[in-house]
Amino acid sequence: MKHDWWLSATRPLDQTACALAAERQRRLTKPRGSLGRLERLAIHLAALQGRERPAVERLWIAIFAGDHGVAEEGVSPYPQAVTGQMLRNFATGGAAISVLARQLGAELELIDLGTAEPLEPPPAGVRRQHLGPGTANFLRGPAMSVRQGLDALAAGRDSVRRAQAAGAHLYIGGEMGIANTSSASALASALLEQPAAALIGPGTGLDAAGLARKVAVVERALALHGAHAGEPLEILRRLGGFEIAALAGAYLACAQEGLPALVDGFICSVAALLAVRLNPACRDWLLFAHRGAEPGHRGVLEALAAEPLLDLGLRLGEGSGAALAVPLLQSACRLHGEMATFAEAAVADAGR
Amino acid sequence: MKHDWWLSATRPLDQTACALAAERQRRLTKPRGSLGRLERLAIHLAALQGRERPAVERLWIAIFAGDHGVAEEGVSPYPQAVTGQMLRNFATGGAAISVLARQLGAELELIDLGTAEPLEPPPAGVRRQHLGPGTANFLRGPAMSVRQGLDALAAGRDSVRRAQAAGAHLYIGGEMGIANTSSASALASALLEQPAAALIGPGTGLDAAGLARKVAVVERALALHGAHAGEPLEILRRLGGFEIAALAGAYLACAQEGLPALVDGFICSVAALLAVRLNPACRDWLLFAHRGAEPGHRGVLEALAAEPLLDLGLRLGEGSGAALAVPLLQSACRLHGEMATFAEAAVADAGR
Repeated sequence: MKHDWWLSATRPLDQTACALAAERQRRLTKPRGSLGRLERLAIHLAALQGRERPAVERLWIAIFAGDHGVAEEGVSPYPQAVTGQMLRNFATGGAAISVLARQLGAELELIDLGTAEPLEPPPAGVRRQHLGPGTANFLRGPAMSVRQGLDALAAGRDSVRRAQAAGAHLYIGGEMGIANTSSASALASALLEQPAAALIGPGTGLDAAGLARKVAVVERALALHGAHAGEPLEILRRLGGFEIAALAGAYLACAQEGLPALVDGFICSVAALLAVRLNPACRDWLLFAHRGAEPGHRGVLEALAAEPLLDLGLRLGEGSGAALAVPLLQSACRLHGEMATFAEAAVADAGR
Repeated sequence: MKHDWWLSATRPLDQTACALAAERQRRLTKPRGSLGRLERLAIHLAALQGRERPAVERLWIAIFAGDHGVAEEGVSPYPQAVTGQMLRNFATGGAAISVLARQLGAELELIDLGTAEPLEPPPAGVRRQHLGPGTANFLRGPAMSVRQGLDALAAGRDSVRRAQAAGAHLYIGGEMGIANTSSASALASALLEQPAAALIGPGTGLDAAGLARKVAVVERALALHGAHAGEPLEILRRLGGFEIAALAGAYLACAQEGLPALVDGFICSVAALLAVRLNPACRDWLLFAHRGAEPGHRGVLEALAAEPLLDLGLRLGEGSGAALAVPLLQSACRLHGEMATFAEAAVADAGR
């Protein structure tokens, strides 16, 4: 039986760079600790990038799109065709992540893992890696075949390898898929062993009746598949989606390739939790951008011991929350790298 | 008796631009409300700037520096000479705000309102408007004369007029002054009618003994001056500092000139509270960047009904927290201005 790639060792942190960065922080012209989270972030990035002065300038944003069979249960206010339509919108520059990627000068990679309706004509700039016309409805069986699950994980890994080959400093994964908060909520409920009703919110905009329907759908899914909650690969295959599996694969590959990943919202965080269940050592390589509006996000972040940077009530996905947090990482690095030390600036340090 | 300038009317919000912006938000290719705080921010900026698609590209950062007589009570771990030394560090590009201003391409204006030790040689790029060699120790009498208080307010106003003349889209005020968290804490305690011990924290890095000394100093200050808490101008003169008064004047002038202001941390927020007490209509023009580590900041923000964008444990000042929040304002504007509408992108809207 062959060794599964995601179990391979992750890159260790560079403790020398970490110590040098921590020492440098102590000498910069500011009261110690006065830049709060940004100081710890710079030191962490130094340990990840293996240099005293890290940089987050070259950015890779990969958006994985896939449809979900469970959409037929009426769990989203949007028709399923929107997955493909939004993929086209990403490519033509009109979506939120398109605007943010332009603002950041980031590479934006678009990967179609399986839309329910064929995109005609296929939009330029979209990588087509169809694993099927969306997943199967997980109320009728597993969402993915074993082959589809493995191929989706590998699609994420391959995206990370392209990012690494292009010299990226930071990897951001994003997702698009009508009904994927239902899939992510079912996974979160299984992984966290928490009731669906405690995790599920309006997603992209359900009313009260839609919300009740979504809770009932997730409860039925857990009754069908919940016994596999302790097997991360199997539960991912049964309740997940192509894009969620790809994101999990991407986070695992980031840790193996030594590329820091900035995790977006609820759905990406569920993928991150799956990645950590598959290979716990990958956790060090994951930075968390924001706490979103979806109620389940809080519990997933807690299970990951994640302290996100932003809390702005976002619930869009597309990697948008991660893109919004990038300037904070950049500022943390620039402050760390460019500020004068007390000695350089001839400023008196605190008397102690 | 002449009319005090800060009582003059503030610029009204543009309700037409506000309504157009709100309508535009509803048509963009994302679920309604899914960009959370950023949607409300874009609409607010539209109302302030009087255009459906606001922009926050040209930035003006003004740092007001001044020394505080109360420093002789041992309320800061840093020697008073650091105020001037840091002013030089701002000018030569080594301070946190210097790095952030470069990152943002912002104009950085440095204003020396009165350092205790003369800066020799005077650093290039620092505007000298000395109101005295720091304020008086407020344990021995009012910190400022009536004239000094008025001149400091006017110094803030004049900075805003320069920003406005330069075509700035956003005004950020920052401060530098050893011992100015003691001054700001005394003002906050008086304005909020809360005990000093509930508001005071380590500032730039006091130990437990230093903290107790600072609380005792503020309590003595309130015993001496607290009876004037209901007179904002008088309490500002008695407990404030040149830079705090200048910031209050700047915020008032921003509202009158029609220039949105992004308020930094604890000390700036106290200045903002004074501005609002002096002329409540200026509140509309104030955006709040972050909730800092200083315990008193929370209460001041609540009194202002302010919902800051970031919460990163910052306690540096210099306008640094505001500078860090600028990319969020820029993203809010770009998303609002550049995203495609459902009609433009041929994406199906939610079925309702």
